[in-house]
Amino acid sequence: MSFPRIQPPQRLLMGPGPSAIHPSVLAALAAPTVGHLDPYFLKIMDELQSMLRQVFQTSNPMTMAISGTGSAGMETCVVNLIEPGDRMVACINGVFGGRMAEVGERLGAEVTRIERPYGEVFSPEEIRDVVQRVRPKALGIVHAETSTGAWQPLDEIAGIVHDSGALLIVDCVTSLGGVPVEVDRLGIDAAYSGSQKCLSCPPGLAPVTFGPRALEAMDRRTRKVSSWYLDVGLLRNYWGSNRAYHHTAPINMNYALHEALRLALEEGLEARFARHMQHHRALKSGLAAMGIEYSTAPGCGLPMLNSIRIPEGADDVAVRGQLLNQFGIEIGGGLGPMKGKVWRVGLMGETAQKSSVLLFLAALEQCLNTQGLCPSPGAGVAAANEEYLKQR
Amino acid sequence: MSFPRIQPPQRLLMGPGPSAIHPSVLAALAAPTVGHLDPYFLKIMDELQSMLRQVFQTSNPMTMAISGTGSAGMETCVVNLIEPGDRMVACINGVFGGRMAEVGERLGAEVTRIERPYGEVFSPEEIRDVVQRVRPKALGIVHAETSTGAWQPLDEIAGIVHDSGALLIVDCVTSLGGVPVEVDRLGIDAAYSGSQKCLSCPPGLAPVTFGPRALEAMDRRTRKVSSWYLDVGLLRNYWGSNRAYHHTAPINMNYALHEALRLALEEGLEARFARHMQHHRALKSGLAAMGIEYSTAPGCGLPMLNSIRIPEGADDVAVRGQLLNQFGIEIGGGLGPMKGKVWRVGLMGETAQKSSVLLFLAALEQCLNTQGLCPSPGAGVAAANEEYLKQR
Repeated sequence: MSFPRIQPPQRLLMGPGPSAIHPSVLAALAAPTVGHLDPYFLKIMDELQSMLRQVFQTSNPMTMAISGTGSAGMETCVVNLIEPGDRMVACINGVFGGRMAEVGERLGAEVTRIERPYGEVFSPEEIRDVVQRVRPKALGIVHAETSTGAWQPLDEIAGIVHDSGALLIVDCVTSLGGVPVEVDRLGIDAAYSGSQKCLSCPPGLAPVTFGPRALEAMDRRTRKVSSWYLDVGLLRNYWGSNRAYHHTAPINMNYALHEALRLALEEGLEARFARHMQHHRALKSGLAAMGIEYSTAPGCGLPMLNSIRIPEGADDVAVRGQLLNQFGIEIGGGLGPMKGKVWRVGLMGETAQKSSVLLFLAALEQCLNTQGLCPSPGAGVAAANEEYLKQR
Repeated sequence: MSFPRIQPPQRLLMGPGPSAIHPSVLAALAAPTVGHLDPYFLKIMDELQSMLRQVFQTSNPMTMAISGTGSAGMETCVVNLIEPGDRMVACINGVFGGRMAEVGERLGAEVTRIERPYGEVFSPEEIRDVVQRVRPKALGIVHAETSTGAWQPLDEIAGIVHDSGALLIVDCVTSLGGVPVEVDRLGIDAAYSGSQKCLSCPPGLAPVTFGPRALEAMDRRTRKVSSWYLDVGLLRNYWGSNRAYHHTAPINMNYALHEALRLALEEGLEARFARHMQHHRALKSGLAAMGIEYSTAPGCGLPMLNSIRIPEGADDVAVRGQLLNQFGIEIGGGLGPMKGKVWRVGLMGETAQKSSVLLFLAALEQCLNTQGLCPSPGAGVAAANEEYLKQR
């Protein structure tokens, strides 16, 4: 039995990730493989770390790419900072906060969960209450909830967590490169992300950064990290100056991330954040004109991940199928309790372009039309165009 | 501060991995990214699993690629089969057997280590003794020790381990695709590999397979797997028929592995094994003519990883540096206690070609010559050529 060669369809990736990939990133991915201790690769690692520090807005030496996807980044942060019996708070307002709790529990941590409904965010008071009550070693919170599109403000929270003596672990999987992730200014102790969201690199690597208090906590551990693969103490020897072999790094994935970061910094972080916001506004105007509402609470919607309510009477699976099959557009369905209730429309990295917004609105109109659900034809595209004109 | 684009030097990868990559694998790697739940990607996953079963020579349904490197594959096997307090035997005759012991210990397993000197293998009697004495839940052994070049026979061992009621975990990182890995015939319960050795795909994925007894052991677990990321119970839901989202798979890496497997099966496993052996024999003849000896015990050298003693008086680092800088050839130094004593010359996957063997021998001769250490110029290449002529 033999199979055909890889020949994927061309998709416009407007789901919750992966996002569209720039051709030069795919070209870097296919560059000749060298060894993981080759002087050329060591230079690439240095440059990659330097660029990751820029996007994380940090000077943390221990900033690197974990050889796994965003979820491996989450696990890296939790397993290195938490030991069995440690108290940890997980702030859960979506699937990924819940995952952080689960990762902690599997380690034997005493996890306290605080919850907000999907689509909402936590207030500083809620955080203050829980850290004063629990006195945890660490509190984990999601900056950009990929499952709900909610944008958690971190400014006040970071101070509150630090005042209680706890470490702050932040999930930046969907936020990094799309909105500011100010690790040093806020004093985030550990943050993790994924390569495939606003950095627009294929999935497979997880950027992480650890601040001085996180490293101290690791140094004070009484037992080894349960995961050998994700042990930052060992990884420091490879990503640090002595370059001791740990595992064979995914060479070509690191090439691709290097190029994706280079493009992001060439654009400039401020310009990149503004671009995400600009196209989000146009999309939002278009959707509003079509009578489609956001499922996130007012004021806390993310620009790069638009979680919208499926219009009354629309068939979730049929619409997403038509978008994919007739227009090549991927959007995301709802996760967990949001399944069948929302669509998640990503405008991440390379996907955040005028052409994505306009094509998606036009395509969605046609899909809804198929189901007899398009009250004012052309209204979405017209409103988005109007918003673009206003922005000029 | 901005960095140049990725532009790696062209290397002939003759180290212990990564190995040379076929252009069509690099092309697959750079194919357009689709979503991890895209029907096209789900089809690729099915095909990938089917092809992995062929190279593992198994019908195990639970055969898949872990989203990490070979070491993540090792960790996946151990963390899913071993619980805290379980007895495990680790057979250590090199770095990777030691790593398996460490992974088990970090989990809280009661690990019994049996040891052989680097470069040697275990006898069936040693295995019988230890399983009868310890009565472990699992025994872990390395089929092809990447740190020493030793080839562990498994035929008798598998039966002995099973008779004792233990599970057999086998490290096939370096062997898969280069020598037979007969999972079903031998009754191996869990095996892991890496994409970057004899499969000649870039590093980043870890093929694994679990047999029925391994799955039963997972079903009987009393506590959750300590790693969420590597929990096979969860991964079964994504790689199995219900395709439940677990993590965002490294799409493009899976494309590349798909193409690498396709090429391997197109060549045919028997032909591929014979090719590895053929070029190994030529290399060995050439080295013998140059007076260079293998560091592995007689009769247990791997064809794809040739661990040779650094000739008396030769400067390890200088020779490897000259090979890399003047000839573009990467070979590996010694790991752990073998550092400075051996070179590891890989003939893995695409690297196993006549041109690699001849160029390496010619280049090595020149490097040794630089150090006044080449007694009979041309002897290595001549002997290899003679061996090739004999093989015709």
